[in-house]
Amino acid sequence: MGRWAWWPRPCTVCAALILQLLYSAGCRPAPAPSHTLIPVPATIEVIDAAPFVFNDSTRIVYDADSPGAEHVARFLSDLIGNTVETMPTVEPVAAGAPLTNVVHMRYSVGPQQGNDAGEGYRLRVTAEQIELEGDGVAGLFYGAATIRQLLPALVEYTAAYPNPLAVPAVSISDSPRFEWRGAMLDVSRHFLPAGDVKRFIDLMAIYKLNRLHLHLADDQGWRIEIPGRPLLTEIGSSTQVGGKGGGYYSTDQYRDIVQYAADRFITIVPEIDLPGHTNAALASYAELNCDNRARSTYTGTSVGFSSVCVEREETYEFIDDVIRELAAMTPGRYIHVGGDEVETLTEEQYVMFVDRVEEIVARHDKLIVGWDEVAAADLSSGSRVQLWRPLWPAGGDTATLDSARAAAASVLRQRVDRAVANGVSFIVSPADRIYLDMKYTPTTTLGLTWAGVNDVRDAYEWDISDVFSGIPESAIAGVEAPLWSESLGSIHDFEYMAFPRLPGVAELGWSPADTRDWQDYRQRLAGHELRWKVMGVNYHRSRLVPWSD
Amino acid sequence: MGRWAWWPRPCTVCAALILQLLYSAGCRPAPAPSHTLIPVPATIEVIDAAPFVFNDSTRIVYDADSPGAEHVARFLSDLIGNTVETMPTVEPVAAGAPLTNVVHMRYSVGPQQGNDAGEGYRLRVTAEQIELEGDGVAGLFYGAATIRQLLPALVEYTAAYPNPLAVPAVSISDSPRFEWRGAMLDVSRHFLPAGDVKRFIDLMAIYKLNRLHLHLADDQGWRIEIPGRPLLTEIGSSTQVGGKGGGYYSTDQYRDIVQYAADRFITIVPEIDLPGHTNAALASYAELNCDNRARSTYTGTSVGFSSVCVEREETYEFIDDVIRELAAMTPGRYIHVGGDEVETLTEEQYVMFVDRVEEIVARHDKLIVGWDEVAAADLSSGSRVQLWRPLWPAGGDTATLDSARAAAASVLRQRVDRAVANGVSFIVSPADRIYLDMKYTPTTTLGLTWAGVNDVRDAYEWDISDVFSGIPESAIAGVEAPLWSESLGSIHDFEYMAFPRLPGVAELGWSPADTRDWQDYRQRLAGHELRWKVMGVNYHRSRLVPWSD
Repeated sequence: MGRWAWWPRPCTVCAALILQLLYSAGCRPAPAPSHTLIPVPATIEVIDAAPFVFNDSTRIVYDADSPGAEHVARFLSDLIGNTVETMPTVEPVAAGAPLTNVVHMRYSVGPQQGNDAGEGYRLRVTAEQIELEGDGVAGLFYGAATIRQLLPALVEYTAAYPNPLAVPAVSISDSPRFEWRGAMLDVSRHFLPAGDVKRFIDLMAIYKLNRLHLHLADDQGWRIEIPGRPLLTEIGSSTQVGGKGGGYYSTDQYRDIVQYAADRFITIVPEIDLPGHTNAALASYAELNCDNRARSTYTGTSVGFSSVCVEREETYEFIDDVIRELAAMTPGRYIHVGGDEVETLTEEQYVMFVDRVEEIVARHDKLIVGWDEVAAADLSSGSRVQLWRPLWPAGGDTATLDSARAAAASVLRQRVDRAVANGVSFIVSPADRIYLDMKYTPTTTLGLTWAGVNDVRDAYEWDISDVFSGIPESAIAGVEAPLWSESLGSIHDFEYMAFPRLPGVAELGWSPADTRDWQDYRQRLAGHELRWKVMGVNYHRSRLVPWSD
Repeated sequence: MGRWAWWPRPCTVCAALILQLLYSAGCRPAPAPSHTLIPVPATIEVIDAAPFVFNDSTRIVYDADSPGAEHVARFLSDLIGNTVETMPTVEPVAAGAPLTNVVHMRYSVGPQQGNDAGEGYRLRVTAEQIELEGDGVAGLFYGAATIRQLLPALVEYTAAYPNPLAVPAVSISDSPRFEWRGAMLDVSRHFLPAGDVKRFIDLMAIYKLNRLHLHLADDQGWRIEIPGRPLLTEIGSSTQVGGKGGGYYSTDQYRDIVQYAADRFITIVPEIDLPGHTNAALASYAELNCDNRARSTYTGTSVGFSSVCVEREETYEFIDDVIRELAAMTPGRYIHVGGDEVETLTEEQYVMFVDRVEEIVARHDKLIVGWDEVAAADLSSGSRVQLWRPLWPAGGDTATLDSARAAAASVLRQRVDRAVANGVSFIVSPADRIYLDMKYTPTTTLGLTWAGVNDVRDAYEWDISDVFSGIPESAIAGVEAPLWSESLGSIHDFEYMAFPRLPGVAELGWSPADTRDWQDYRQRLAGHELRWKVMGVNYHRSRLVPWSD
């Protein structure tokens, strides 16, 4: 997505400043939260009783007939084993065996609960044991993620000398509101090496995020090796914004990222942006251009100027090659095909193109996701639309809109209604809320401002039912925070823009709407600072958050 | 170095706390420094005049007959080009040509100045131009490092959108006090991947540090590929403290690190610790053990238990193989051969061993550095001794020492005097001052305490003439801050222990003794916080430093 000029939001900025002044003056001290969990569980009771303390005899056990549980048990043991003297042993036990001094993992029986049964869990911590019941293996993982946040921050050290570890007594029943809880990394405008992507996956996993959308191709760079199409990496990968650098993931590296993410219950959603945002491909293969002349590589930050030639069969052969190879390396159901900001095609050409791409993706047993422009086509059931444009006003009052924006909103509204009727579902990514490349404040050095400034509160304090009113919740797959990288040159920069906003996106996607409470949230968020310091996260010290240091 | 139990230093801790209370209560506000340069230049005048501002026409030029200057000019252009719209062009000019809107680099003529002439420089910034005169190419690089610190912190971003850049008007004449201004990374106890070592080199270069000592072999891991000795990496590299992980640098990776450092005027000093701290080698090659039986790998944190068999010729063949290969990849003059904490040999055996190792190193055209125990041998001229044990009291008053320590200090004193007479010089690394793995305060989670706690002030406010009294300054090569990694598991942990102490070590090594002023320094140090944030440095927010945020 490029710059888009409609959304100054000075009122939000002013309101945030005034509130900050009020709170720093102590006008309305909020009660301290009883825990700092993010996302906040659906129900939680903090019990005034002795905690569970890990010692040399503590075991992590799982019911012997629980496939996949050992993986989660080892993940937790590895985490704890970095900090305590003796790594907890991991072993299966017979169901119903009497147990003490254990973390005990098992699956629920009977009808499963929650809107995505496999991800729900129940957790009960007493001085004697930690009982974790998952609706599926993902549920066990999310229960373990909750245990992780209940442990002191120093559990995140990988080599600090042994320290005691205690988990407070709690009773939690939890499951996610939405299936799709994602983030997107634009690795095209500036390339992120594979190790940095894994680092970002580690940070996502702490917050129960489960989709990582990788924006693998744009005008400035092609980032994925495609067997049989070597010029994509020889030419298309050689550049990035500003000119210096570039890079790509080999098929082995991509598969490794996919597996690393899967081990943390995160599905990779690869994006090849089409038909626009394609200059890197157009520079690599001349036949993708209507004039059969390869374009020069591009290192600026304009958008909208490029398109593959939608009238040539070579284009669809190319797309088939790319999607086939990508599908073969991608276990997830979805491939993102972009579709945004095309300024060089007629609507008829564009719709024809989206139809053909949807067919190609289906031929390789995948479903498409596209940016909201793709709703111009008559999409198939199962396709997904990612709503990004900040077109609709809070509360749905279109009378406040200028005429151009009202017209655009009206067109998108009609298309969305048709898509809902077709069985399409939606991923919600409003640029004026959770585009993580928007500056925090007007003085933030990194980032852009075309959709306004999104401070921590802006990114947290909203709901899908307000922003995209009229879409039934059953048609909402979930939420995703894109992080575009025109102005970001390193993992440090990516982290600075993602933290502390990304945990709020995780809570929007996971927690019930009626738990949303900014005063409570900002205090919980402050409690995560020490963990980020331990992990070396380069976070922004927003003045809206009551950091303890 | 392991733990060593003699140095509690409660008075230093108390004094620091009391001072902190006084300053936070505003009892003695120190005057704000006129700049935040670290290390502080030998002489600096900040001029009340218009700054130099980079614009689209600014050039970086160097006198056409100045070999090496183009490298420094490009380094500066790359840095600035990340931030301004147009990267400054780099070009040679005829000496004496009239110039405006340039950074102009040239070499000094006539007799060179300073105690290491090649590293000194003069810098004059006006609104019209920046004139930089170096005593050698290193001097140009250090002048460029000063320009870097005079530029706003956002110059460190690699992709932030264009911002204006100004350099305040100053006149500086500067050269280092000591030749050797170093840091040491223990990559044996926990391995640091090559990319992380380069990151650390980047951070060192900001502070004009010029030696990176890599502790490449210890009981817990062997970290360098040695052609012809494959078991060192097959077996010896497979472990680290705590058991998980390990790793090594291939010869290509090592050469790449050496070149990357050299491009930043940093010399790599590789260390193979001998004859003790050798369990990883003893586990790899059975013939290094007197009983001809390979040892098991080791992942604990004890010291002193291991030694190669000093009576077997196989040992010296092994050392010859290792030193030969290492010397071939190492352009620097020095190879560090350890020598510390040997508890299983007689003094006679130890001295014989050090003599033979010195010969082997000389055969490969290098000189040795050893930890201070090696002064037990009758060392050759040009060898270097690294003083690490906190044996000598501040002010030289040995009456305050307990008897065991006084005896050890007396023995070392005699050996040092002999070494001085032999033409040996010294690298100063007192554990109770600048061992960066010592905790900042008793509550720091990372790090150890066997030499006490070293807060930022402890690491800065001392002088070699106090701590190692009696060694003539002409016999002091310089200063080096070791960073041992028993408790450090990632580059984030290494950074946390190095920052903010390492810049103080750089100032100790570079700046004249009479510039040392803690009240001034702590304010300059606070001015570096934003730069570290921009670079994503995981620094410790010591309460002794008046951070602005």
